[in-house]
Amino acid sequence: MSGRIGTLAVIGVGLIGGSFARALREADRVEVVVGCGRGRENLEEAVRLGVVDRYTHDIGEAVSDADLVFLAVPLGAMRDAFGAMRATLPSTALVTDGGSAKASVVADCRAAAPELLGRFVPGHPIAGTEKNGVAASFAELYRNRRVILTPLEENEPHAVARVREMWEACGAEVTEMSVQHHDEVLAATSHLPHMLAFGLVDMLARMKENDEIFRYAAGGFRDFTRIASSNPVMWRDICIANRDALGPMLAAFANEMTELAKDISEADGERLLEIFERAKAARDRYVDGFK
Amino acid sequence: MSGRIGTLAVIGVGLIGGSFARALREADRVEVVVGCGRGRENLEEAVRLGVVDRYTHDIGEAVSDADLVFLAVPLGAMRDAFGAMRATLPSTALVTDGGSAKASVVADCRAAAPELLGRFVPGHPIAGTEKNGVAASFAELYRNRRVILTPLEENEPHAVARVREMWEACGAEVTEMSVQHHDEVLAATSHLPHMLAFGLVDMLARMKENDEIFRYAAGGFRDFTRIASSNPVMWRDICIANRDALGPMLAAFANEMTELAKDISEADGERLLEIFERAKAARDRYVDGFK
Repeated sequence: MSGRIGTLAVIGVGLIGGSFARALREADRVEVVVGCGRGRENLEEAVRLGVVDRYTHDIGEAVSDADLVFLAVPLGAMRDAFGAMRATLPSTALVTDGGSAKASVVADCRAAAPELLGRFVPGHPIAGTEKNGVAASFAELYRNRRVILTPLEENEPHAVARVREMWEACGAEVTEMSVQHHDEVLAATSHLPHMLAFGLVDMLARMKENDEIFRYAAGGFRDFTRIASSNPVMWRDICIANRDALGPMLAAFANEMTELAKDISEADGERLLEIFERAKAARDRYVDGFK
Repeated sequence: MSGRIGTLAVIGVGLIGGSFARALREADRVEVVVGCGRGRENLEEAVRLGVVDRYTHDIGEAVSDADLVFLAVPLGAMRDAFGAMRATLPSTALVTDGGSAKASVVADCRAAAPELLGRFVPGHPIAGTEKNGVAASFAELYRNRRVILTPLEENEPHAVARVREMWEACGAEVTEMSVQHHDEVLAATSHLPHMLAFGLVDMLARMKENDEIFRYAAGGFRDFTRIASSNPVMWRDICIANRDALGPMLAAFANEMTELAKDISEADGERLLEIFERAKAARDRYVDGFK
């Protein structure tokens, strides 16, 4: 391999996989893109749109000429994907992924294809939209977005450098952290908020006269619950994959809300003001500050 | 009074009070607007902007010529405001308010000026922005927004009709419901989400390495936590004013999150999928449907 990739195999040609292929094409960093997936219609659209050059439904066939494999399948499908590629993957090929939880994907690789641990570099692009499928993909998705790599002890240094280089060619800002730290940070900033949004909308939907309740929901509610329109299957997979970090964090949050409910019922104004002021200061400083 | 108001007294000339005055002026439904508040600078700006014709810091003086009084002070200041107006309020004047909780305001009126219950029509415009002060006010704030009136048993019918007429002149869609039902609907759709946003940001801010956590928060987190940038004092007041509806609802939600945390830790995929699917269906149907 030189500064370009000969053949890129994209396993799962949706928003994430399709945008990776498009971005590398636009940066002129790839010669051939092979797509792999289950839905024939989506894959034919990927060919029509020029996102992939050819496709197959067979992972072993898809990776047989690959210099780089990008695994963009749901977390629940990672283990089988590792197993399906081991027989045909060229010995110099690198593998990376785009899963939203990392410990589970590493465990999947270790279980299904342990000999790949030296050249499987786990990654997670912090990007996405509410849309799915290759039709929603676009070359700029990763521009100025963060991509977290969680290199493994077993990783060969050139593998990490190479995967980083490809993400940087997509315009992403690449950082590295440990697998465990990644999973905690994502549990806090993404998985936990999704649980609250899903949980809130679900609770209100089960209330009497729920259509009237939703009728009076204003703009703040719409923003707050937008993420509850995300894909339920994907989120089931994420929850299970990241249960070690997410379960305890959600339990801790639930305890804090029990306390807050008590503060409210007791009209403890001082305590309420303390919490709200600390939260507002943090959000104004960190979230708006990093816009 | 005819189709126009002679003198409107706006107590609290901020976003809510200022926009009400501007909208009635633009609809040519008011002759004179008197502003009342504590901050001199804000009131002078209100005169400069043409939102009010004159101002005073004294509520009794502000209402002494009023045909309609609009109380747009924080919930924690309502009781004193009722008390301050009773001596000078003309016997034909109507009173309404814009508070986000209604039972507490009605209790304040009953405690401080019970003789006003016949002509105090509680109201709540479901509108607002993150900005404060008269400079943020604009005549279109209430256009096509919902305004909930919660008429009292004691209310004279013409009082309710008149207040409704004024809100409709602002372009609002006016509906009526009971005080208690209003407070439950608002607890569910506004107050509870605010608690979760404040609580989440506060919990993350107290974590180790919190600036790194916020650094990786993506767009979904920004939307989800936007309401945590709201005014802490106002929200303390709302929580205390609506504690009877909000306290138990937040406690119930906390219990559901404890259960969900357990489902996640036990990797109960079926249960997770059920919750997420129900939530997505409700949000897609109700929230996006009412856009």
